[in-house]
Amino acid sequence: MKDQKTATLTLPSANAGDERYGATPRQAVSAIDRRLARKMLEAAGRPAIALVLWNGEEIYDGSVPLMARAHISDRFAFFRLLRNPSLHFGDLYSAARIQIEGDLVDFLVATYRGMSDQQRGVLARLHKLVTPRPRANTLRGSRANIHHHYDIGNPFYELWLDRDYQQYTCAYFPDPTLTLEQAQAAKLEHVCRKLELKPGDSVAEAGCGWGGLARYMAKHHGVRVRAYNISHEQVAYARSRARAEGLTDRVEYVEDDYRNIAGEYDKFVSIGMLEHVGPGNYAGLGDVIHRVLKPNGRGLIHTIGRNKPELMNAWIEKRIFPGAYPPTLREMMEIFEPYGFSVLDVENLRLHYAETLRHWLKRYEENVSSVEAMFDRTFVRAWRLYLAGSIAAFLSGSLQLFQIVFARPLDNSLPFSRAHLYR
Amino acid sequence: MKDQKTATLTLPSANAGDERYGATPRQAVSAIDRRLARKMLEAAGRPAIALVLWNGEEIYDGSVPLMARAHISDRFAFFRLLRNPSLHFGDLYSAARIQIEGDLVDFLVATYRGMSDQQRGVLARLHKLVTPRPRANTLRGSRANIHHHYDIGNPFYELWLDRDYQQYTCAYFPDPTLTLEQAQAAKLEHVCRKLELKPGDSVAEAGCGWGGLARYMAKHHGVRVRAYNISHEQVAYARSRARAEGLTDRVEYVEDDYRNIAGEYDKFVSIGMLEHVGPGNYAGLGDVIHRVLKPNGRGLIHTIGRNKPELMNAWIEKRIFPGAYPPTLREMMEIFEPYGFSVLDVENLRLHYAETLRHWLKRYEENVSSVEAMFDRTFVRAWRLYLAGSIAAFLSGSLQLFQIVFARPLDNSLPFSRAHLYR
Repeated sequence: MKDQKTATLTLPSANAGDERYGATPRQAVSAIDRRLARKMLEAAGRPAIALVLWNGEEIYDGSVPLMARAHISDRFAFFRLLRNPSLHFGDLYSAARIQIEGDLVDFLVATYRGMSDQQRGVLARLHKLVTPRPRANTLRGSRANIHHHYDIGNPFYELWLDRDYQQYTCAYFPDPTLTLEQAQAAKLEHVCRKLELKPGDSVAEAGCGWGGLARYMAKHHGVRVRAYNISHEQVAYARSRARAEGLTDRVEYVEDDYRNIAGEYDKFVSIGMLEHVGPGNYAGLGDVIHRVLKPNGRGLIHTIGRNKPELMNAWIEKRIFPGAYPPTLREMMEIFEPYGFSVLDVENLRLHYAETLRHWLKRYEENVSSVEAMFDRTFVRAWRLYLAGSIAAFLSGSLQLFQIVFARPLDNSLPFSRAHLYR
Repeated sequence: MKDQKTATLTLPSANAGDERYGATPRQAVSAIDRRLARKMLEAAGRPAIALVLWNGEEIYDGSVPLMARAHISDRFAFFRLLRNPSLHFGDLYSAARIQIEGDLVDFLVATYRGMSDQQRGVLARLHKLVTPRPRANTLRGSRANIHHHYDIGNPFYELWLDRDYQQYTCAYFPDPTLTLEQAQAAKLEHVCRKLELKPGDSVAEAGCGWGGLARYMAKHHGVRVRAYNISHEQVAYARSRARAEGLTDRVEYVEDDYRNIAGEYDKFVSIGMLEHVGPGNYAGLGDVIHRVLKPNGRGLIHTIGRNKPELMNAWIEKRIFPGAYPPTLREMMEIFEPYGFSVLDVENLRLHYAETLRHWLKRYEENVSSVEAMFDRTFVRAWRLYLAGSIAAFLSGSLQLFQIVFARPLDNSLPFSRAHLYR
């Protein structure tokens, strides 16, 4: 298939900022450079992507139709990439020293698929020996990590999240034509139904973001919610929205760690927090739930997860989400097993997250000049990569989205069907 | 609450065969006997049950209202019970040397709840250190184990299982007024919908019992099924039913181990087999599924399970189900993780199994004279205890029933909602 090596990639470049693929004429390409580039593609599982070196020369294996090209601006960038691709690709892309010709999501999907093919086969069983353990999240460390990501400014998130509930978690698209606003409301309702909310119920929420779920529950299901979050900016925002909507008698936002939840509740819910908890703290989270959940209480945890253990991508963990770790179902059982909590329902919404992220990325691109005015060009490219990379991860099965409903072991007040979720 | 010690138990004895609680007049009861009896109740977590010793003397802690009495016929029986209650209770009950005054299921629920309260508290975390591992099931050993339970005669099972599909697994009662026949058909349909069966699909079934699911799938969903089972009697029965119903062109029953499944299939299903597979073979089952499931194939495993690891009750494992072990979700991940299978849906149908068993026990009692004619009185009592004990285990959260749907990691042909299960 040699002719494919010179095939013209006719896909339009969908990514603002990727308009120039300028080679640096001063640096020549050596035979060693070429060989290393080929080795890198091989090590990545021969994805359907080409590397274009700084002299314009294209390196491509050619076994499958080309999906995208990565232009590398200089040898220094190339050598950094070689040293640790999963860490440095992000920084090099952010600095525009790597630029993608073709669709960024397609490029990243091809990369993910290549790597996931590599991981199967003979390496399939190795995962048991090398189960990764991320850094521990202490009370203080958690605050720093959460501040890094969530306190970069509410106006930034307002540019591209849904307007009604400002949900920075997976939406629910039972119908693909839903708008982002509709799909986020559908997610909130889906969660409420899974929790079997009844008017007057008391609810503890661990990690409440900008408070959208708590407000939705209070407004539409007549429950009282105490919602915990350690992000100062988010709690301030959540309180002002609750005041504006006259919900302060039913919704209380507490700026504190989930480990300090006090009281007893009919329902326990946590949407998109477990990713930041860390496996070393799962048993402790189980202790908290055991302490606060009433005998016939119901719990729900909604989290990004994995099919098998793997650390968060190094660049995402460093630049975007410090301390983040998406667990497998097996790892999550550390929360439930010690007290014998009974898992009632697990739903995997992986493709819903890809859909959610597509909406976010679209709005993000529409507001890219505002983002650049708030931050800078590198930030713009970093967050584009993070959003596009997340779409690719969910599309290629590298990331999952689990909603887990659970109850205490002796609770026999369980519904005999899940039909109430779909009425 | 001392007066409760002499409270009259007014519950009628619902269990045929428990009509006499004859004391053995020759044996006196000593102070040591009394103390040991009290200790035993204490060790069992002070359940709401009384022990009646062979001289008619009642031992009861009295802290909660009495639910039932266990009459122990003689000191030898008492000492065997003390030595290993979970193993010997069954044999002593079967031999009528222990008899239950009050409802047998209530008695067993009280026992289970007492034990499960014991296990919480300080012992909650110990489970990690003492994860039990049952005996390995070799190819030959599996045959012997399965023969022990399933080949004791189709006519026996016909006395109390549903007539249409002879399902010896949990039925599905979305409506509690369903008959057993309706609830088993509802279970089969629920499984077919979870598998997203399409006409023409090929299905591999591992552990097909009397072949009811395969016949249902072929008849109602127009698929071709190859169903494996190592029980000779069950396969013979399944084949004759398929012939009688003109389904032999679409349903093939293979008398062989699931490890020998050959071919490639759109769907993989296994209902009530995993309990007999053993944790040491879960990775091997994953290998089988990986080998036979097409790229966009869908799989479903339906199994009795646990909230936390625990061996099967010793008596059940010895007398009823040799080699049986109900896994936790964590343990089941050994099947899915190595190949990165994606868990799409987990549903816990614990209370449905209690309901199913109630139907079975009722029919069993209605046919108890036929059972005694086929076997003997000890067999009648042993199976009564097994059925009643299983109800108690599901009602007290000691046993769970998991249905797990899974797909390959790169399969993006997933439904965006589970509403199709409830139409």
